Amino acid sequence: MITKLDKFDNSWYKPGSFLKRMCWFFINSIFFKSSFFSSNPLKKLLLKLFGAKVGEGVVIKPNVNIKYPWFLHIGNHTWIGENVWIDNLTTVQIGNHVCISQGAFLLCGNHDYTKSSFDLMTKPIIIEDGVWIGAKATVCPGVTCFSHSVLSVGSVATKNLDAFSIYQGNPAQKIKERVIAD
Amino acid sequence: MITKLDKFDNSWYKPGSFLKRMCWFFINSIFFKSSFFSSNPLKKLLLKLFGAKVGEGVVIKPNVNIKYPWFLHIGNHTWIGENVWIDNLTTVQIGNHVCISQGAFLLCGNHDYTKSSFDLMTKPIIIEDGVWIGAKATVCPGVTCFSHSVLSVGSVATKNLDAFSIYQGNPAQKIKERVIAD
Amino acid sequence: MITKLDKFDNSWYKPGSFLKRMCWFFINSIFFKSSFFSSNPLKKLLLKLFGAKVGEGVVIKPNVNIKYPWFLHIGNHTWIGENVWIDNLTTVQIGNHVCISQGAFLLCGNHDYTKSSFDLMTKPIIIEDGVWIGAKATVCPGVTCFSHSVLSVGSVATKNLDAFSIYQGNPAQKIKERVIAD
Repeated sequence: MITKLDKFDNSWYKPGSFLKRMCWFFINSIFFKSSFFSSNPLKKLLLKLFGAKVGEGVVIKPNVNIKYPWFLHIGNHTWIGENVWIDNLTTVQIGNHVCISQGAFLLCGNHDYTKSSFDLMTKPIIIEDGVWIGAKATVCPGVTCFSHSVLSVGSVATKNLDAFSIYQGNPAQKIKERVIAD
Repeated sequence: MITKLDKFDNSWYKPGSFLKRMCWFFINSIFFKSSFFSSNPLKKLLLKLFGAKVGEGVVIKPNVNIKYPWFLHIGNHTWIGENVWIDNLTTVQIGNHVCISQGAFLLCGNHDYTKSSFDLMTKPIIIEDGVWIGAKATVCPGVTCFSHSVLSVGSVATKNLDAFSIYQGNPAQKIKERVIAD
Repeated sequence: MITKLDKFDNSWYKPGSFLKRMCWFFINSIFFKSSFFSSNPLKKLLLKLFGAKVGEGVVIKPNVNIKYPWFLHIGNHTWIGENVWIDNLTTVQIGNHVCISQGAFLLCGNHDYTKSSFDLMTKPIIIEDGVWIGAKATVCPGVTCFSHSVLSVGSVATKNLDAFSIYQGNPAQKIKERVIAD
C-alpha cells in the first residue's frame, strides 16, 4: 500500500479552542519566539494565563517556541535556553532543577507510517528532576528522561533515559554513569 | 596545498536575475520565514508567481525558508512543516503525499574540498511519493529518497534511500523495512 | 547528590559591562539575527566597534547569531553562513579561508554535571586556516579544529580535529584524509 495524505484525519485531536490557539499563536510569536521582550516575569505570567504550570525561579531565554502552554508543566528552578522548541502537541512535564539547553527540541508528535492514512500519534514527554538536555539535542515522543539523566549535545533520545546516566548519539546510547560528587 | 577562498569563483552559477532573487529574498523573509502570514493560498500563489510548481492540497507551515522557488516542484497533498529549510541552489523535486516534518533541511550545495579554490557544487534532490523526512532531519546534495522511504528524526541522508525503507543516524543507515499494512 | 540549580553561581563570570551587553543584544537582534540588513560592510563595522577582529574579504550571511563580538576573531577571506550561531561565552578564534556553513553552531559553554551547583564552564574554540565546518554541524567547547580539517554535515565535534582530516557523526569520528590536489 501507499501513503495517502488526503486521507489523513486528525479530527479526533482537540488541543483546545480555535480562539485560544490563535491568541497563543500570536503571543508565542511576539513574546517568546521573538528576539526581544525577554522579561521573565511577563513570559511566566503569559504562560500561566494560558494554563501552564510554572514554578519558582524558572528562567526562559529568548527565541523559545512553545506549541500549547496548557500542556506544559515546569517545576522550580528550571531553565529553558535560547531557541528551545517545545513542540508539545500533548503534555510535556518538566521537573525541578532541569536544564534544557539552547536549541534543544522536545517533540510530541509522530505519525503511524504503517497506515496509508499516516495517522497522527501524540505522546507525552516527562523530564524528571535534575535532568540536563544538552544544546541542540532532541527528545522524541513518549520518552521519559529519568532523574538526573543527561542527553549530550545534538543527541536524539528515542527511548527512555535511565536515571543518573549520560547518553550520546542518534539514536542516543548510554555512555556512562553520572556521579554528582558533592 | 591549502584552501584559498579568495580564489573561489562561482561566476558560472546563474540561479536567476539579480532583480528576481532580490524580490524573492524579501518575499521569503516576510511571508515564509516569518512567524506570521500563514495563509496557505497566498503562499502558494507567491511560490507559483516565482516559478514553483505546487500541487493540490499542499500545506506550508510558518517559518519555512525557501532559497529559489523557480527550482522547486511540489506534488499533490504534500506537507512542508514548520521551520523547514529548502536550501535549493538547484532543483528540489518533491512528489505526492510527502511529509517534510518540522525543522527538516534539504541541502543542495556542496564544495569541492579537494580543490584549493573550494569550488561550488550543486546537486538536485529528489523526494519521491509517500516519503517521510522526519523532524530536524537533513537530506544532502544529490540524494534521491525513493518511494515511501523514511528518514528518522535528526538523521542525515548522505546517500540514496531505498524505497519502503527506514533510515536512522548520521550518516543514515537502513534500520528496517517500511510496511504499510492497510 | 542531586542538582540544585538555585545554588548555581556564575558571579565569577564577567563577560563585559551590562550596558555593552545590552547594546549588543539589540544590535545582534536587528542587524545580525534578522533576515534583513545583509550589508556586509555595516555588519563588519558593527562587529569591530564592539571589539571583534574581522579580516579582509569576510562574508557574513543573514540570520547569524553572535553572543559577544569582543570574544570573536575572524581571519581573512572567511565565510560565516546563514543561520550560523556563534555562542561565544569566551574566545572563538577563526582563521583565514575558513568556511562556517549554514546552520553551524559554535558552542563555548558547558556545565559541570558532577557538581550539584552545576557550575558554568566556558572553553574557547580555535578554528585554524582552511577548515570547513559543514552545514548544521556543531563544535563543542574547548575544541580545536586544526588546519584544513572538515566537519561534515550535522556532525558534532567533541574532541580536537586533526589537520587535513574529515570527520563525521555524533560524536564525530575521523573517516578519511583530506587531500587538496592542486
